[in-house]
Amino acid sequence: MTGQKLQVIPLGGLGEFGMNCMAIRYGDDILIVDAGMMFPDAELLGVDVVVPDFSYLVEHKELVRALILTHGHEDHIGGVPFLLSQVNVPVYATNLTLALVERRLDEHELDEEAELNEVKTGERIVIGPFAIEFIHVTHSIVAAVAVAITTPLGVILHTGDFKVDPTPLDDLPFDLHKFAEYGRQGVLLLLSDSTNVDRPGYTESERAVRPRLEDCFHRAEGRLVFSTFSSSIHRLQQILDLAQEYGRKVALLGRSMLSNTEIAHNLRLLDIPDSILLRPQDIMQTPADKVAVIVSGTQGEPMSALARVAVDNHKNLSIRPGDTVVLSARIIPGNEKSIYRMINHLARRGGDVIYGTMNPPVHVSGHASVEELKLVLSLVRPKYFMPVHGEYRQLARHAKLAESIPGLGLQGSFVLETGETLEIDSYGARRGANVSVGRVCIDSGSVDEVVEELVIRDRRHLSEDGFVLPIIAINKHTGKNETLPEIVSRGFVSLEEGSDLMLEARRIVAKTLEGSSAEERTDWGVMQEKIRADLKRFISKQTSRRPLIMPVILEV
Amino acid sequence: MTGQKLQVIPLGGLGEFGMNCMAIRYGDDILIVDAGMMFPDAELLGVDVVVPDFSYLVEHKELVRALILTHGHEDHIGGVPFLLSQVNVPVYATNLTLALVERRLDEHELDEEAELNEVKTGERIVIGPFAIEFIHVTHSIVAAVAVAITTPLGVILHTGDFKVDPTPLDDLPFDLHKFAEYGRQGVLLLLSDSTNVDRPGYTESERAVRPRLEDCFHRAEGRLVFSTFSSSIHRLQQILDLAQEYGRKVALLGRSMLSNTEIAHNLRLLDIPDSILLRPQDIMQTPADKVAVIVSGTQGEPMSALARVAVDNHKNLSIRPGDTVVLSARIIPGNEKSIYRMINHLARRGGDVIYGTMNPPVHVSGHASVEELKLVLSLVRPKYFMPVHGEYRQLARHAKLAESIPGLGLQGSFVLETGETLEIDSYGARRGANVSVGRVCIDSGSVDEVVEELVIRDRRHLSEDGFVLPIIAINKHTGKNETLPEIVSRGFVSLEEGSDLMLEARRIVAKTLEGSSAEERTDWGVMQEKIRADLKRFISKQTSRRPLIMPVILEV
Repeated sequence: MTGQKLQVIPLGGLGEFGMNCMAIRYGDDILIVDAGMMFPDAELLGVDVVVPDFSYLVEHKELVRALILTHGHEDHIGGVPFLLSQVNVPVYATNLTLALVERRLDEHELDEEAELNEVKTGERIVIGPFAIEFIHVTHSIVAAVAVAITTPLGVILHTGDFKVDPTPLDDLPFDLHKFAEYGRQGVLLLLSDSTNVDRPGYTESERAVRPRLEDCFHRAEGRLVFSTFSSSIHRLQQILDLAQEYGRKVALLGRSMLSNTEIAHNLRLLDIPDSILLRPQDIMQTPADKVAVIVSGTQGEPMSALARVAVDNHKNLSIRPGDTVVLSARIIPGNEKSIYRMINHLARRGGDVIYGTMNPPVHVSGHASVEELKLVLSLVRPKYFMPVHGEYRQLARHAKLAESIPGLGLQGSFVLETGETLEIDSYGARRGANVSVGRVCIDSGSVDEVVEELVIRDRRHLSEDGFVLPIIAINKHTGKNETLPEIVSRGFVSLEEGSDLMLEARRIVAKTLEGSSAEERTDWGVMQEKIRADLKRFISKQTSRRPLIMPVILEV
Repeated sequence: MTGQKLQVIPLGGLGEFGMNCMAIRYGDDILIVDAGMMFPDAELLGVDVVVPDFSYLVEHKELVRALILTHGHEDHIGGVPFLLSQVNVPVYATNLTLALVERRLDEHELDEEAELNEVKTGERIVIGPFAIEFIHVTHSIVAAVAVAITTPLGVILHTGDFKVDPTPLDDLPFDLHKFAEYGRQGVLLLLSDSTNVDRPGYTESERAVRPRLEDCFHRAEGRLVFSTFSSSIHRLQQILDLAQEYGRKVALLGRSMLSNTEIAHNLRLLDIPDSILLRPQDIMQTPADKVAVIVSGTQGEPMSALARVAVDNHKNLSIRPGDTVVLSARIIPGNEKSIYRMINHLARRGGDVIYGTMNPPVHVSGHASVEELKLVLSLVRPKYFMPVHGEYRQLARHAKLAESIPGLGLQGSFVLETGETLEIDSYGARRGANVSVGRVCIDSGSVDEVVEELVIRDRRHLSEDGFVLPIIAINKHTGKNETLPEIVSRGFVSLEEGSDLMLEARRIVAKTLEGSSAEERTDWGVMQEKIRADLKRFISKQTSRRPLIMPVILEV
């Protein structure tokens, strides 16, 4: 036993969807598990990517020993370049995860400095006071692991993302035995994936998709186009295998599709049958019933290959009547409108589009449903439980689920959100002090990549009712405005020059100026505030709108 | 037989979700079926409501004979005030539909002029060359009808929205016999609801919800809060009945909940057990296990009663640990984020929230699934078929479904989008000329309610990267700018006054001015364009952003 305490510090992904990042600290040593990103809500205007605020790690730079990655999805590795550019620690991950991280680092020109270490499932490494074992789990991406972190106070088991697939395509099932073994020896704290806690029953095996994909091959008369996540290697494998059986060549479209299949093929995780590949430029020259295309862009992302195909703006593929398009992917909440818009376009070109809850569904989830979550809880029998990866509603439900299993011997469950911490010492577990967290908004095209929250707030304001800008030219000699103030506006109301509303608004500004004392008029800050207030009142009364009002005073 | 042709003219709701409106024209007589609204996409910034552009009807004002309404949902009646204020025609509808329209007209102060006519199911009215029969159908709102319109060229059967519920709560099932009768006599054209064409099988009966609601009553220990659409009278009835059985008083929260229950009660469509109602102000003073609350706001609308309860900002109801909140409604695509945000808040207050696909589901759809659609097609056996109410993907699938039933004897199916028309004469059916259609965006708070598309485009531009406004003061005597131009910006990048970027941008503008000929400088339009172009190039190169740039030239 020791006097040091163990701290579990979620920096992202708890009480929010995505950007998973968890720090685990024992005394003067910190381990990080995952550093993900999230795609922004629609209200984060002009933002491409959101990553956690890593301030806590930057402040304790000298204590951070390693970054452990559970798998290669963006919500677990997308923040790695942003983390490493601030805190360059060694990274530990399995082969595919590492290859995907490497590509990201390469894009950010960080690949030279990074220290990347490949680990294998079953391997155990020691870092400071932590012994870390990588346990094979099944998920919609291959080479996914859970991590068992043995600390001086006991074992923390972090599941990563998982489902319990008894029949995965590579015959490497979820490692139930290792979970059981840790459960037998005693686990101090379980951190478990809450994504699908709302779903009753069991998530279907990846193999369940095969007969449904086969049905598509069986029925299709024209071209057969599949869209799936390019990281779903096993889904790609099934499509390739079926194409081989049904005598169709396969073309790959989309940057991520090409790059991910290449990575997976090089690592021997994807088996590409001999001479099955078709060059994209040959798609339209090959008989339609001899072609299958796998294309990225399941979520209707505007620049993706499938979105371009949908509006018939892709140089290699045109959808014709008789073609079948299969969306073999989840519709991520928030993306419905753009996905359906894309499907409408595909249908307009005559494509038969298979998607969503249609019979038969051509997608299965990668996350555990309620019965699998109960199975993991029952195997691990943790002393303490902390649900991870989910919004509050999911974490709360997962905690209730654990509490509803009487035989577990649970001594406490903790629903924590990002920034709240858990402390464990020899007396037990309790909530600790909060740490500073937040989100950093990235506009990936721009030089100064970080977008300040203030700028986003302004954009939101502008997006509602536009702006109104009164411009007052003040003579620097006389201190007076000699002409009626100008007003320019955009996104507000469709105004003709010299409309009554505009003319009246200009008079209001002039009146405010006239009605101000000489003293006030020397203080531009005061004048701007007065003008803003008077004009806001006038506009709100006349139009019930609240544009952004920004008075400009020019000295001429 | 006659020489006149029949035209079917969709003015809204085909190839889009919502704002259903269909004109049917025979010679010089036009009937309108439904006049709905839609809720705007997120990209229609600052817009509350969208209604069809009724120009076609306004242009042919003197030919329009009547507006027929199939049922009282917003996507079928929400545009009525906007239509009647332009073309005041007699309205025909069943009792509940008419009462809901009356309230809308009242809000727009149009109730005096409107001519509202109540019809009963089974009734037949004659308007010009049309004989219209109202046929009882089942849907998630009561008093819903299909309409059979007998024209000189044959019968047009318009289903409205429906499902085929064999066991509705009021024991008034879908009128299969009437559909069969028309089918026997021969139907020229079927227009049928495509909303759920993606769903295999049969939509469950409204009665299927009862055991699931009962389960909630059975398990709940604290307060029991239900949220449902306030127009779902049968859902409300089931909750009221169960509350009575389980000894809970019922409080109603939310403006639409109060108003709709009052309307339905007055029409004897809703049976409110004696003394079951609890005043909202008494909720928190009544033992928690003796209270049920029905509250509006299933879609997370920010000002709705449930959204306010979620953030603990409702004067009559606070959620406490042990309370149960049941969302007995569909999650409408596009609303996921706000609904989940609301659920997270409810969970944070300790509420157990039942929603979505959880087991057991506490909601059933009001629209027919594939097998019901096939049933209606098989009963009606139309000569021509035109799917209505849906996006293109749904209409196309519905048409394929009809074509896949060989015994139907279908002579043609037509996938039309809003603005495309169908013409039928004694020789057959074909596509006709397009008519002018569109959408009108309404910002309901403002005086000038219609929001121009241009204004919305500006808002979208502003929302992406904000604005940059160079302001140039030109001396009207010398024609020269005497100081460095000013630049103001918001929502662009977080700039300090005098930052390098800003200073450089000001120099760019000054250089453009200096580099222009005397002739150019007299033409402000030219100067604005030159400044815009040069500044845009500079900013795009420096920041990769594309703010709205709007040069202002002041003469001082």
